[in-house]
Amino acid sequence: MLNFNFHRPTDFYFGKGQENSAGEICKKYGGSRVLVHYGSSSAIKSGLIDRVTASLEHSGIKVIKLGGVQPNPMDTLVYEGIELCRRENVDMILAVGGGSVIDSAKAIALGVHYDGDFWDLFAKIAVPTQSLPVGSVLTIAAAGSEGSTSAVISHYENGVLKKKGLNTQLNVPKFAIMNPELTMTLPAFQTACGACDIMCHVMERYFTNTQDVLLTDELCEAVLRTMKVMLPRVIKDPHDYEARANIMWAGTLAHNNMCGVDREQDWASHHLEHELSALYDCAHGAGLAVITPAWMEYVMSHNVMRFARFAVNVFGCQMNYEDPKTTALEGIQALRRLWGEAGLPLNFEQLGARKEDIPTLVANIGQDNHTEGHFMVLDKKQITRVFEMAADYKV
Amino acid sequence: MLNFNFHRPTDFYFGKGQENSAGEICKKYGGSRVLVHYGSSSAIKSGLIDRVTASLEHSGIKVIKLGGVQPNPMDTLVYEGIELCRRENVDMILAVGGGSVIDSAKAIALGVHYDGDFWDLFAKIAVPTQSLPVGSVLTIAAAGSEGSTSAVISHYENGVLKKKGLNTQLNVPKFAIMNPELTMTLPAFQTACGACDIMCHVMERYFTNTQDVLLTDELCEAVLRTMKVMLPRVIKDPHDYEARANIMWAGTLAHNNMCGVDREQDWASHHLEHELSALYDCAHGAGLAVITPAWMEYVMSHNVMRFARFAVNVFGCQMNYEDPKTTALEGIQALRRLWGEAGLPLNFEQLGARKEDIPTLVANIGQDNHTEGHFMVLDKKQITRVFEMAADYKV
Repeated sequence: MLNFNFHRPTDFYFGKGQENSAGEICKKYGGSRVLVHYGSSSAIKSGLIDRVTASLEHSGIKVIKLGGVQPNPMDTLVYEGIELCRRENVDMILAVGGGSVIDSAKAIALGVHYDGDFWDLFAKIAVPTQSLPVGSVLTIAAAGSEGSTSAVISHYENGVLKKKGLNTQLNVPKFAIMNPELTMTLPAFQTACGACDIMCHVMERYFTNTQDVLLTDELCEAVLRTMKVMLPRVIKDPHDYEARANIMWAGTLAHNNMCGVDREQDWASHHLEHELSALYDCAHGAGLAVITPAWMEYVMSHNVMRFARFAVNVFGCQMNYEDPKTTALEGIQALRRLWGEAGLPLNFEQLGARKEDIPTLVANIGQDNHTEGHFMVLDKKQITRVFEMAADYKV
Repeated sequence: MLNFNFHRPTDFYFGKGQENSAGEICKKYGGSRVLVHYGSSSAIKSGLIDRVTASLEHSGIKVIKLGGVQPNPMDTLVYEGIELCRRENVDMILAVGGGSVIDSAKAIALGVHYDGDFWDLFAKIAVPTQSLPVGSVLTIAAAGSEGSTSAVISHYENGVLKKKGLNTQLNVPKFAIMNPELTMTLPAFQTACGACDIMCHVMERYFTNTQDVLLTDELCEAVLRTMKVMLPRVIKDPHDYEARANIMWAGTLAHNNMCGVDREQDWASHHLEHELSALYDCAHGAGLAVITPAWMEYVMSHNVMRFARFAVNVFGCQMNYEDPKTTALEGIQALRRLWGEAGLPLNFEQLGARKEDIPTLVANIGQDNHTEGHFMVLDKKQITRVFEMAADYKV
């Protein structure tokens, strides 16, 4: 087990009706001039923005609004948000939405206190030292950004869209308001993409070379098994509150690092997917559904027993003691079946990606000597092979 | 699933050598005049108190010391600590020890800011509103107090020793320094008592009437299975670092309420045990090893399938679909076997308790109409029966 630091001070308000206390909660954490940050039309149409605004104003809070966050959020809106926060003396940002909105809010919060181009922070040219407090009203279970240290922002670099992540303790939100009912009106595809992202956040941590970390392994499998049961339930009945609730809380625990504190983690699949969503603007969860199983098949030989364990403990496959590889492969196929039945793409064609773009994807991921992953370190040739396997997979 | 609030801002520093950063960490959280609070001789003899003191002084912190905390910590030392903190203008308490020392530190921290007898807070006559910051250097994996809202203090009431718990967000420590190596020199019996306490913290939450809370159920089973594997390892080899580490982190997660956020919890076994340790001054974990399986057998009929699930999922028992009760009983026996083999007592005689004291134990627990538990609500007659079953169990 590796030494670790774990500090997740986010204050979670979970369950029905919690968004109606948004004003009270913002006030508790010192908000008096709050930027309500949100995405496109759905949060407005549903009346959520109005309800949250009313709750804040009822608590005597001045509300400033900035909408328009897109999936794979852009730096352009972050610049706009920073300007707006400075002009309006904003002292807190309340993200009403999913991971994209929260990540955008985190970037604005860091940028307000940075005396320069906020992109320096994401480009790792400068280290952030201060941030505005950020809270959220979560509307999709997926990214886990409501309780995590991470934020991912997209921007154009020499005409190429790049996604860059920044992990810092300053990114951990002060509070999160999580009402599973708010996720009931999501399109099934978005629900499935979110569930896939949640499972991948766990798997990036589960496949590790660190030995003798049973507790965290068990926690990983606990979250994965829950998702295996609950994903088909919400696809069948979007109004299944209990399934929505289990998934929503799983989304937080999958990415607050409870499932990975003590180990070397991988993250190759996430980085490969970032290239897909940068090139095709596809949903992050959809890209993961295509890349992750291909990655699993490619790296499986590095530790077959780990994948056999995954198959048995998560999907209840029968262990083949004579040939553990068949069990390992069965587990990967069971994962694909779960995701496919939830409506997720499983190869390039279904995703809307093109095999002939693979050289571009691989070129964009980094310099010639660039590697990805830690469970098995992949060079560019190997990364190419993973993309090819994802492209060629026969559904 | 019930609505919940979850807020555990404790900053964990986990792993080898972390105690050497105690000074730096105390400073980070504002300590300049720190009360180092500890138990009896072991932390002094091992040199830990000296090392921690040196680290604090190296960071320019003024150290004030108060030792002498006993297992089942007394109010008398709390009064002394409050006086000392006020006299010396202490601005932080660093507990170096286990649950008793941390609980004592929490009570002192609350008392310093309360303008009256601190016992009012534990007697629920007054509600605490402020507390000194508390941190810990943990030396035993057991109570989970390093990351929990709870503190338990003993005091004499009309000549009878009473244990009273106080749960408040103010009790959540600012930080915890957790080096599993520090637990390697514990006597085997204390290690086993700690492991039992950890498992019972989970089981008090696991046996619930709240439905459809799969994620948290899975997390409970994950912690319990880990303990099942790791307890025999540390009993066999006290210097097994990985086993110590898994158990230590399990102790925190077992009682920070991650395993119980969404549900009605029970806590009857804990309260019955408090009467045992108040009367006999036995170790809390030892009392739990006697009471909990007896409680399980008594309440099992309330939901046999829940206990069958426990048997199958935690202890790998074979499910008897024709007669689930036999599976449920097998699980309880497997638990007793695990604890017995770790050297824990399993009945009154082994604990040093006497069957003829049962009327006293039951009288002390509360008024005539007093009840315990939520999974199955027990009146005094039923509580008596649980004590009797614990007394009579044939090893």
